Amino acid sequence: MKSRCLTVPLGDQAYPIHMGSGLLSDPEGWQKPLINPQILVVTNTIVAPLYLSKMTNAFAGRDVASLILPDGEAHKTLTTAGQIWDFLLEHRYARDCALVALGGGVIGDLTGFAAACYQRGVDFVQIPTTLLAQVDSSVGGKTGVNHRLGKNMIGAFHQPRCVVADTDTLTSLPARELRAGLAEVIKYGLIADREFFVWLEDHLDELLARQPSALIHAIATSCRIKADIVGADERETGVRALLNLGHTFGHAIETGAGYGVWLHGEAVAAGMLMAADLSCRMGQFDQQYVDRLRKLLARAGLPVFAPKALDAQRFVELMGMDKKVKAGRLRLIVMRGLGAAEVRGDVPESLLHATLAEFPRGEHNHG
Amino acid sequence: MKSRCLTVPLGDQAYPIHMGSGLLSDPEGWQKPLINPQILVVTNTIVAPLYLSKMTNAFAGRDVASLILPDGEAHKTLTTAGQIWDFLLEHRYARDCALVALGGGVIGDLTGFAAACYQRGVDFVQIPTTLLAQVDSSVGGKTGVNHRLGKNMIGAFHQPRCVVADTDTLTSLPARELRAGLAEVIKYGLIADREFFVWLEDHLDELLARQPSALIHAIATSCRIKADIVGADERETGVRALLNLGHTFGHAIETGAGYGVWLHGEAVAAGMLMAADLSCRMGQFDQQYVDRLRKLLARAGLPVFAPKALDAQRFVELMGMDKKVKAGRLRLIVMRGLGAAEVRGDVPESLLHATLAEFPRGEHNHG
Repeated sequence: MKSRCLTVPLGDQAYPIHMGSGLLSDPEGWQKPLINPQILVVTNTIVAPLYLSKMTNAFAGRDVASLILPDGEAHKTLTTAGQIWDFLLEHRYARDCALVALGGGVIGDLTGFAAACYQRGVDFVQIPTTLLAQVDSSVGGKTGVNHRLGKNMIGAFHQPRCVVADTDTLTSLPARELRAGLAEVIKYGLIADREFFVWLEDHLDELLARQPSALIHAIATSCRIKADIVGADERETGVRALLNLGHTFGHAIETGAGYGVWLHGEAVAAGMLMAADLSCRMGQFDQQYVDRLRKLLARAGLPVFAPKALDAQRFVELMGMDKKVKAGRLRLIVMRGLGAAEVRGDVPESLLHATLAEFPRGEHNHG
Repeated sequence: MKSRCLTVPLGDQAYPIHMGSGLLSDPEGWQKPLINPQILVVTNTIVAPLYLSKMTNAFAGRDVASLILPDGEAHKTLTTAGQIWDFLLEHRYARDCALVALGGGVIGDLTGFAAACYQRGVDFVQIPTTLLAQVDSSVGGKTGVNHRLGKNMIGAFHQPRCVVADTDTLTSLPARELRAGLAEVIKYGLIADREFFVWLEDHLDELLARQPSALIHAIATSCRIKADIVGADERETGVRALLNLGHTFGHAIETGAGYGVWLHGEAVAAGMLMAADLSCRMGQFDQQYVDRLRKLLARAGLPVFAPKALDAQRFVELMGMDKKVKAGRLRLIVMRGLGAAEVRGDVPESLLHATLAEFPRGEHNHG
């Protein structure tokens, strides 16, 4: 078994991220520090048949139970969080219990939020089983649920006690979801690590072929970049916002296309390319980098266009609803070189409109 | 106008508590540091006709709106929190907005929880209009809603930006609620300040007559004690638990009698006396103090008995569901002298049963 471990530097809330092949079958190294007497594993109908028994075995000897929820973003709601709270109260879980999120980003965000608010906060552990969750949503403590008027509008910052990313779980991941995860991996190179971007250009085929050593390198590098940023700015008052590169455009795409029609990573891929296009129009990002990004995303099988139904006007409306509105002004993350990004509150409207109007539109074949 | 101000010492989350007569009509001193462009005042149908216009005037010139909820503990639910979130999203409140809780503990807990989870946390301000809220629930950052299986089971720690306790609002307070607030005031003397307990014995009549100078002294002393304790232990991992003196018994009384039949302060009054009785049986609290406490509570018009319907067995069941269960063991706050309390995980069951069985039962006349 190959494995690596890094720490998210958050003072008395610091926690380890364990990454490697076979971690679920060999829990000794990561499970010991979790001393909670009661454990509830929260997972979904897709993941449960694959990994739930490994998970409960990992906590053998404790009072461990599981709750299997329906799969999908449509269930990331207050109502589903309410089902978790009902279960916890009906089974008398005490304040020293731990919730274990076994699944992708939806399960992680939902379970983390349930843990954040149960008795004003109990422990939780992230066991991400998708590439996207391993490199993004399971690290950093953002938890929450969707509201009919916006994604992640109800939520909390609540750091996990540990994250366990077992690359073996990626063998069962549908190809479309692997590609969606790669969008976020590419984002890390783009905003923070030029060398990693070049490495991705060189090793994309190995990642698409799911070679464990390439996956572990990509996950470890992504998590290291995210951990550094989160450690510097837990509550997103500054540098953490850079992690949202492409997300304002991406949220508009997700909402405009209808939740779940585009995967989050797919929308972020198109959104990053729009941000790069805008940065180029602003004269601070070379056209050649935009082209290299487009090529890399396309090789990864990710969309390099926006939905046909989303014209510039609708984009503006949907972006206005985004959380990045501050005092009536849209703040956007833009590129200022390969491996460097910045938050700007003064993007010229004419350039933004040019990007929104001229960015290619296309038909998403969903995979 | 007489007023005082003290600070809750919580590092970068420190905040002021303004106390005095006429503060709502003269907002200059406390309103200025709140720079939020959008303000939502959350209140209820009882408080709105009395103080809402003063409140919106205090924020004249901002984008200020109000949401008037039904009154009562029965509405301190996730459903009502959902109504606040719906309003915020429908009216496009951004992350830099502030929620202002104008009312008693229910409005404060609910609004604070809505603020804690809206876009993962926005500012909020406490304007408590009951004595109980002024001395207890508005200070310390505990927010939350009830679940059918337990009080405050869903919640968050979220500190307000400031607290404004205007004693003029107490002139409209029903006598029963004034008395319920005095229960918590007496608690502070009991757990932390022997001199204050004696002062209360000497000045209770002035408090019952709502003399402003006596009220301001009682509120300021109570808030100072609570602020010191919260400053030392925000997340209740230690000394903060002492604030729960009488609350484990009290929650059992509230739940056993049905939410809202006993006021929280009434249940805490009876609960404190039960804790004192238990402490006396444990040999660490003089019978004369138990008697003085009973006399003081009775003079304040507070119940010094438990509900008739609640026998010892039912008490044990209801206390077992309380959050103070830790690893299967009931932790209780007991007295160890006048002005001193402690958390104990080793209370002899036989003594607890004696208190539960022998404590007087009575018919609560509801004020």
